[in-house]
Amino acid sequence: MDNITLKMLAKELNLSTAAISKALRDSHEISFETKRRVQELATRLNYIPNAYAGSLRRKKSKTIAVVLPEVADSFFSLAINGIEAVAEEKGYHVLIYLTHEHFDREQAILKNFQNGRVDGVLMSLTAETDSYQHICDLSSKQIPLVFFDRICEVKDTAKITTNDFESSYLATKHLIDCGCRRVAILSISNHLSISNKRLEGYEQALKAHLPDQPPVNVVFCGNDPDTNSLFLKKIMGEEERPDGIIATVEKLTTSIYLTCKELALSIPEDVKVVSFSNNSSAPILNPSLTTITQPAFEMGRAAANTLFKALEKKNGILMNENLVIPSELIVRGSTVAGA
Amino acid sequence: MDNITLKMLAKELNLSTAAISKALRDSHEISFETKRRVQELATRLNYIPNAYAGSLRRKKSKTIAVVLPEVADSFFSLAINGIEAVAEEKGYHVLIYLTHEHFDREQAILKNFQNGRVDGVLMSLTAETDSYQHICDLSSKQIPLVFFDRICEVKDTAKITTNDFESSYLATKHLIDCGCRRVAILSISNHLSISNKRLEGYEQALKAHLPDQPPVNVVFCGNDPDTNSLFLKKIMGEEERPDGIIATVEKLTTSIYLTCKELALSIPEDVKVVSFSNNSSAPILNPSLTTITQPAFEMGRAAANTLFKALEKKNGILMNENLVIPSELIVRGSTVAGA
Repeated sequence: MDNITLKMLAKELNLSTAAISKALRDSHEISFETKRRVQELATRLNYIPNAYAGSLRRKKSKTIAVVLPEVADSFFSLAINGIEAVAEEKGYHVLIYLTHEHFDREQAILKNFQNGRVDGVLMSLTAETDSYQHICDLSSKQIPLVFFDRICEVKDTAKITTNDFESSYLATKHLIDCGCRRVAILSISNHLSISNKRLEGYEQALKAHLPDQPPVNVVFCGNDPDTNSLFLKKIMGEEERPDGIIATVEKLTTSIYLTCKELALSIPEDVKVVSFSNNSSAPILNPSLTTITQPAFEMGRAAANTLFKALEKKNGILMNENLVIPSELIVRGSTVAGA
Repeated sequence: MDNITLKMLAKELNLSTAAISKALRDSHEISFETKRRVQELATRLNYIPNAYAGSLRRKKSKTIAVVLPEVADSFFSLAINGIEAVAEEKGYHVLIYLTHEHFDREQAILKNFQNGRVDGVLMSLTAETDSYQHICDLSSKQIPLVFFDRICEVKDTAKITTNDFESSYLATKHLIDCGCRRVAILSISNHLSISNKRLEGYEQALKAHLPDQPPVNVVFCGNDPDTNSLFLKKIMGEEERPDGIIATVEKLTTSIYLTCKELALSIPEDVKVVSFSNNSSAPILNPSLTTITQPAFEMGRAAANTLFKALEKKNGILMNENLVIPSELIVRGSTVAGA
């Protein structure tokens, strides 16, 4: 069947297309009886207004975008569920864009938003992002933007995070309490605000709880599991190897476990491990994994709620606000004390 | 800064908006010199054409949609990566829509596509879907649709699957070879073609390799981990409990492992486990997990390539074709023979 157009409805009812259009928008200029006839025919023929024509008129796409590094990470897949729960309630579509941790891809995606494709944006930066012109360019187009998790600190807008400093401090102190004396931390960026906060928490905890603390041991990892495993094998093969590891990203867990197995190092006897992770397999790993579990679903929901508040206002302006939802340390087998 | 419009460019250069528009589209009606002046000003003022106006004219949104049950499953997150790799190359946007396994949501999403929001659709059905009018309605609008993984068998279009029957047969035979005599299979749907094929493979393998085979034992699970664990606890608590389990979906693995732990059943000594899973933690589980590993990335890439072939043709018609990319059985600790 051909697409039913306004023109076809107009011809069928012997009315102008303008009158049909007004009738469908329930205009006061059209009589009740005419509106009823138009509505009836439109329903019978399954008339669907063209989205782009509609959007052009309303200047609303009824779509929000979520810009993320990846969906293979449980944090992000749970955050998406939180965002979608809110968007569905509001009758909005959610467009998910993945940067795969590439800054140039993030720039291209945001540039594309400038032409009115979406009404608002929820965003978590790539590990590479260290300049923000693309974000300022988007803001200048009055498209509201809410950051969650990997926020841009220098930009005045709403930001949803978890207590990254405190969580990392807590994880480090927990390892020290379990007997670790050489704690290393694995990071993925030296630009990202959350990475820096996690490093700060780690450094402060070492300073406070290990009087004769050795130098901090920060290992920067990348996207490729094989390269990360090589790094880890080098570090864990040294004589003064770490006896405690904090992984600031979920995906590093597999590399740590496999490297330890290869080097015949036992977790938790030889090295204890804590990961920032929302992976549901944490309790069934060998050994079960101690985690900093982030409120991923709640952060997604809060970010979406904040964005919709702005979209429902006339000026669409977002206040510079910070909402912090705390994470939780869940102790499991990978950090059994004195083991 | 305000949005730069065609009208502003026209005023600045003392030309009509029609002339500006033609110049930007490189029309032969406009002189070379005028085109140069228009292009220069447009670049200087960072003029960005309105996406919807552009789409209305071209009737192309340069966007494809991916309709999926969820992203928390490694199969789907890897398939998305395969799809995105192709779309990026082609200069297309990818819209990811999640059904969360709800049929009514799938219907609403497809209805929305009818109005021209997307140029083509890649889709994996919900576990609930057992009627296909919404799919026929979409096809009648000439929007090409490629199924992958959870396909609709009755619909004539391109379909990308893995060898579900053979994989399930192989998994069942592997369990029998390891000594299992009471093999159960956990499914999530009695409508889905892939679920039925996996059940068939299981049944045929039992028939062929267990001469005095007991009745088949099919357990239907749902979306809620707690309900699934209750089911499992009941089955695994019985005297004639299964000594081998095949999980047809990755997420059921955690429920199986936790239930066995709670009931003090040891894997693989008391019960052996194989999961259809692409989870990178499979090798570090306790015990490491034997998997049917699906070619998720390759299936996503093949689905996208097939769709773009149709989009590049004038009529956009997809042939009724089936591409099958085989899965692999990876044997690990959860099915150690004779254990």
